[in-house]
Amino acid sequence: MPTNEQVKVLSQVQEVLDIVKERTIENVFFVACGGSSALMYPSKYLLDREAKKMVSDLYSSNEFIHRNPNTLGKNSLVILCSLEGVTPETVFAAQFANEKGALTVGLTNEEGSHLAKNVDCVVKFEFGDQANAFDTNYSIMYQLTMGLLNVVEGNEKFEKMVTSLSNLQTVYDKVKVAVKENALQFGEDYKDEKVIYTIGSGANYGVAYSFAICILMEMQWIHSHAIHAGEYFHGPFEILDEKVPFIHLLGLDETRPLEERALEFAKRYGKRLIVLDAKEYDLSGIDEEMEGYIAPLVLNYVLRVYANALADARQHPLSTRRYMWKVDYHLPIN
Amino acid sequence: MPTNEQVKVLSQVQEVLDIVKERTIENVFFVACGGSSALMYPSKYLLDREAKKMVSDLYSSNEFIHRNPNTLGKNSLVILCSLEGVTPETVFAAQFANEKGALTVGLTNEEGSHLAKNVDCVVKFEFGDQANAFDTNYSIMYQLTMGLLNVVEGNEKFEKMVTSLSNLQTVYDKVKVAVKENALQFGEDYKDEKVIYTIGSGANYGVAYSFAICILMEMQWIHSHAIHAGEYFHGPFEILDEKVPFIHLLGLDETRPLEERALEFAKRYGKRLIVLDAKEYDLSGIDEEMEGYIAPLVLNYVLRVYANALADARQHPLSTRRYMWKVDYHLPIN
Repeated sequence: MPTNEQVKVLSQVQEVLDIVKERTIENVFFVACGGSSALMYPSKYLLDREAKKMVSDLYSSNEFIHRNPNTLGKNSLVILCSLEGVTPETVFAAQFANEKGALTVGLTNEEGSHLAKNVDCVVKFEFGDQANAFDTNYSIMYQLTMGLLNVVEGNEKFEKMVTSLSNLQTVYDKVKVAVKENALQFGEDYKDEKVIYTIGSGANYGVAYSFAICILMEMQWIHSHAIHAGEYFHGPFEILDEKVPFIHLLGLDETRPLEERALEFAKRYGKRLIVLDAKEYDLSGIDEEMEGYIAPLVLNYVLRVYANALADARQHPLSTRRYMWKVDYHLPIN
Repeated sequence: MPTNEQVKVLSQVQEVLDIVKERTIENVFFVACGGSSALMYPSKYLLDREAKKMVSDLYSSNEFIHRNPNTLGKNSLVILCSLEGVTPETVFAAQFANEKGALTVGLTNEEGSHLAKNVDCVVKFEFGDQANAFDTNYSIMYQLTMGLLNVVEGNEKFEKMVTSLSNLQTVYDKVKVAVKENALQFGEDYKDEKVIYTIGSGANYGVAYSFAICILMEMQWIHSHAIHAGEYFHGPFEILDEKVPFIHLLGLDETRPLEERALEFAKRYGKRLIVLDAKEYDLSGIDEEMEGYIAPLVLNYVLRVYANALADARQHPLSTRRYMWKVDYHLPIN
């Protein structure tokens, strides 16, 4: 039984899908910056696996504008995201996509923001500890992409996805309790590290990327890099020794064998390994067929618990910044 | 006037294009691992900018197999690359693509290799200090992709590209002399660093990635990460202080403003910046319209000179490994 908030979110998604029905959508561009971009990786994975015809690309907002993909046009759907809706690069990317005749959808927490004013359709998402998982950005991205596949190609997994997402908050609540102790231990054990790598593949790579650039580099000033589990053996693994910490993500999608292989190797030569395995979490309420897609959302939630513990142990709050919002570096927004 | 070797390379490319003419190619997959994957990024950039209809994706070989993109099929062209042609993931990816009915092209230095035996078309490239730039992997990738655009969509820049590439060795020879002193200085100044980041965008991102994972992490055991110049402001820049070294790549493609913006910011708060700017090199013989595409190849060449200088200064030869080729980690190859 969906809550009132869920009905509101779904009706926003439905409005987008109704407009999609009137158009011919051949390609999708996922366009955002930093953490807002990272949360779109799972949707790219989903489209790659599920779409019979529709193709997609994911670009950082300013790259998207300057790269100027030749296939961007009236048959394109451009999905953009910015929490407060004021990221200049993303607002400009929306304007750019509009000029090309694309259908633009903006996810934001601020309905009156620059981004909201510059897209064809706005989807408001919720944010923070009080938000229900169903109403948050990751979840809405899946509702949009699975809905798109349903409307354009007749893919019938939309309902399974929506039902699974409506049960996601319960999963989060249980996992929060389950990982609490491990997270505190992580904070204590790794609080003095100068470098911490993350590693994952498939639907989980974006989560590894987000933790590396937004949590470790941005919020903790710890050196990091998100390593793709398949690429690991073709360069990065040479950095491994008994002292270098790696956070290994193990998801439930089709690329899990890559993540398992990297971990198996790391266990032979590394000692500072943190393993987050989605198999260990209680995913009751998530449709079995959706588990691979949902795993990165759960891993991302777990990583946020770990981030809080690390920040506490280091006495370096996640809100600490030296440049972001503090010094002048923004592109001027109109 | 092309040399005999160049005629041989071009005739191999022409053979591929003749086969392409007989098929309907709608999408291209660039599939390889590590450095061989990185050298395909510029070709993805080129297709994005130039292709009216054709779409493309770039995946690490094992991700490609397990992700199993739904649009992979008889209208796909899959371009694979492996220097010695024995990278198991890439050989398996070729077999996988064949089973899906795709047209497979394998770039390798070894004509009798596993990869060569498992693709529809083999293109042999040259390698090492004696090779002419025209006959090397980066150059052949551009010949293939520009040729593909010519054959499938009537793009008329193929000749300009081939002429530019035939003059590339002269550019390399001049640039080698021009950067020699700076490279030696780089080696001396940075030989004790534990972390060195690289940064770039557009056609140059793959070169930044290659230097980070293959040279610094793999061959020098120095922590690293290739940061996208647009993403820099959405997380990674918070790691910057007066001590952290960043190698800034400035290319000549349409995304140069992103690279310039990152450098401008870095100069305000950083002190350990290494700037490699393609504008400073003598690109005589490169068609003006091709300069943006060719810049990453030149930057990659310059970075190799820098890598040699760094390895010498650290007395850590580029051939040093602890795991690669030394311990057992390969997927079993048939």
